[in-house]
Amino acid sequence: MITKPTLILDQQKCRANIRKMVLKAEMHGLKLRPHFKTHQSLAVGRWFKEEGIQGITVSSLGMAQYFSEEWSDITVAFPVNIREINTINTLAKRINLNLLVESLESIRFLDKHLTGNISVFIKLNLGNDRTGLDPKNLDLIEKLTETIDASSKLKFSGFLGHAGQTYKCRSEKEIKEVHSLAKAALVDVTEALRSRFPDIISSYGDTPSCSVCDDFEGVDEIRPGNFVFYDLMQVQIGACESNDIAVALACPVVSIHHDRKEVVIYGGGIHLSKDRLTENGADLFGKLAEPIGSGWGDLIPGCHIKSLSQEHGVVSVSTKMLKDLKVGELVYVLPVHSCMTANLMKAYLTDGGDIITMFNP
Amino acid sequence: MITKPTLILDQQKCRANIRKMVLKAEMHGLKLRPHFKTHQSLAVGRWFKEEGIQGITVSSLGMAQYFSEEWSDITVAFPVNIREINTINTLAKRINLNLLVESLESIRFLDKHLTGNISVFIKLNLGNDRTGLDPKNLDLIEKLTETIDASSKLKFSGFLGHAGQTYKCRSEKEIKEVHSLAKAALVDVTEALRSRFPDIISSYGDTPSCSVCDDFEGVDEIRPGNFVFYDLMQVQIGACESNDIAVALACPVVSIHHDRKEVVIYGGGIHLSKDRLTENGADLFGKLAEPIGSGWGDLIPGCHIKSLSQEHGVVSVSTKMLKDLKVGELVYVLPVHSCMTANLMKAYLTDGGDIITMFNP
Repeated sequence: MITKPTLILDQQKCRANIRKMVLKAEMHGLKLRPHFKTHQSLAVGRWFKEEGIQGITVSSLGMAQYFSEEWSDITVAFPVNIREINTINTLAKRINLNLLVESLESIRFLDKHLTGNISVFIKLNLGNDRTGLDPKNLDLIEKLTETIDASSKLKFSGFLGHAGQTYKCRSEKEIKEVHSLAKAALVDVTEALRSRFPDIISSYGDTPSCSVCDDFEGVDEIRPGNFVFYDLMQVQIGACESNDIAVALACPVVSIHHDRKEVVIYGGGIHLSKDRLTENGADLFGKLAEPIGSGWGDLIPGCHIKSLSQEHGVVSVSTKMLKDLKVGELVYVLPVHSCMTANLMKAYLTDGGDIITMFNP
Repeated sequence: MITKPTLILDQQKCRANIRKMVLKAEMHGLKLRPHFKTHQSLAVGRWFKEEGIQGITVSSLGMAQYFSEEWSDITVAFPVNIREINTINTLAKRINLNLLVESLESIRFLDKHLTGNISVFIKLNLGNDRTGLDPKNLDLIEKLTETIDASSKLKFSGFLGHAGQTYKCRSEKEIKEVHSLAKAALVDVTEALRSRFPDIISSYGDTPSCSVCDDFEGVDEIRPGNFVFYDLMQVQIGACESNDIAVALACPVVSIHHDRKEVVIYGGGIHLSKDRLTENGADLFGKLAEPIGSGWGDLIPGCHIKSLSQEHGVVSVSTKMLKDLKVGELVYVLPVHSCMTANLMKAYLTDGGDIITMFNP
């Protein structure tokens, strides 16, 4: 019996999401190197293996260590943290390790302190303004490629970018416009350097673009991650439908307030995360879906989490729902941001009753 | 050496925060039953024991199990989750367990399924509109007290409230106004029922009120929690100074952007949490403090986290800071909400170099 907040994984939906992205990559002749920071689980990773996936992406060296038990080709899609040089050296002995660089300082540090060989990608800023070099700054980019090339320990693998600005989009059309510019920036730089480095590739990220766009001309590899589960944020962006969401947090009802048309659930910021959406001018932290068997079905109209404390969720509910619900029953919450919810919950219960463990540093 | 995001605990500041609250409680003749959901650590709990604390508050039955190793009087300040009746029965055998009730259904369920004895508080809504009964609804309150009294397994301990609406205050004056109303509501109900139940107590919560208010007439017990560490949210509320904050997240710098006057740190939403403050119309997720020895000092003007992804923090920095910082160096981030940051980090490094473990469900 479920006694406290529990993250339920709908295996059928999850596998369908994986298969769809695998087919899409095949159709466009792209290598799919899925980002595993969303599910963080060896068991879910095996579902990708069954679909023929060979290389993966992670967001930390710790996560790379965890997945190196079963994966031998891992890209850490985060600017190299040179303080973890010992972990890098340990990992580089066991697997093909691909790291991101974006400064001469980091490249020189790696060249000096590496004990084995690794591959590096130069991170480009495709408009997200988080990390990466300006694609227009070809002088600096060339200086980095030369410094990498001069190192006997570093292999220059190409350029990598993440069009994270798609998260501000609110329709397929907007995603396609953002994608078009971001992709062009990545492909142009890669093409410009290809005469000198014929084997380099262009690696492109973000779930919204990879979910809805069809123009990947010039791209060699894609690295979406969130699509494995999707979430309410991806629905709002226009990247999926709510029925594609493959995880829901089952939460016990602990308090009912008829006067305010609210119920309080055991399920708070330490379970769902404080990531939020704005809809009709108000914040929301999750939406309720209809319970069906050991899983869930469609969204229940008019039922969403309006605020979260550490352990409490305050849910605005419809009159019908208020009439039916009793203290001690379970509600199923679709998360705003499944990556953050999964990271907090550290385990899944499948609709078949199996417990799936995750990376737990 | 610190290689990745690490939560540093300044033992001196933390112990000073504890001592100050202990003295305040003594001065007002209040029992201090500190909320341990902030630090979630047996080791930090021992610093409270050294100050004479005997009973504690937690926010979940799991946390109660963890602390029951060293504490024998625990209040779970969360509406009883009847699905965890087995855990309740196990705990009730070992410790004095105090639970919160706010419905006849929960009371009847407990009476039927308990195998031992527990104490219950009736949760009152002191204006926070999260959980609890309306203090004006004396008919319903009396019905609950009678149902509790009729049970041989339940001891009625009194009324408990949490003036969480102080979190919307922005000055000491505002906190005092909110506190005055909230406290009166709690005390009035307790007094009204005392002729019938002479041994009941009133238990009052929230760090802002307990930090700055001086009128606790009629209150028997206080349950602040966050004060053990404080954080930027408490500074904004007006409950503490930034130099009272006893935890900071040490984060490696991984990327520097002179054009945008920004640096990117290894330290994201899975370390700090997505809790945010709004200052001058913009969101912020943490502020940098001056590194001093193995700890930190004053806030650095003009340096704050402007956005967080899963592992990245984007920090707006001052011109001076930008000039001095190098990739691979550490910055010290004061958290917006220390409870959420501690819950994510699951361990502390003291400024003395000791690692302190936490509840890890």
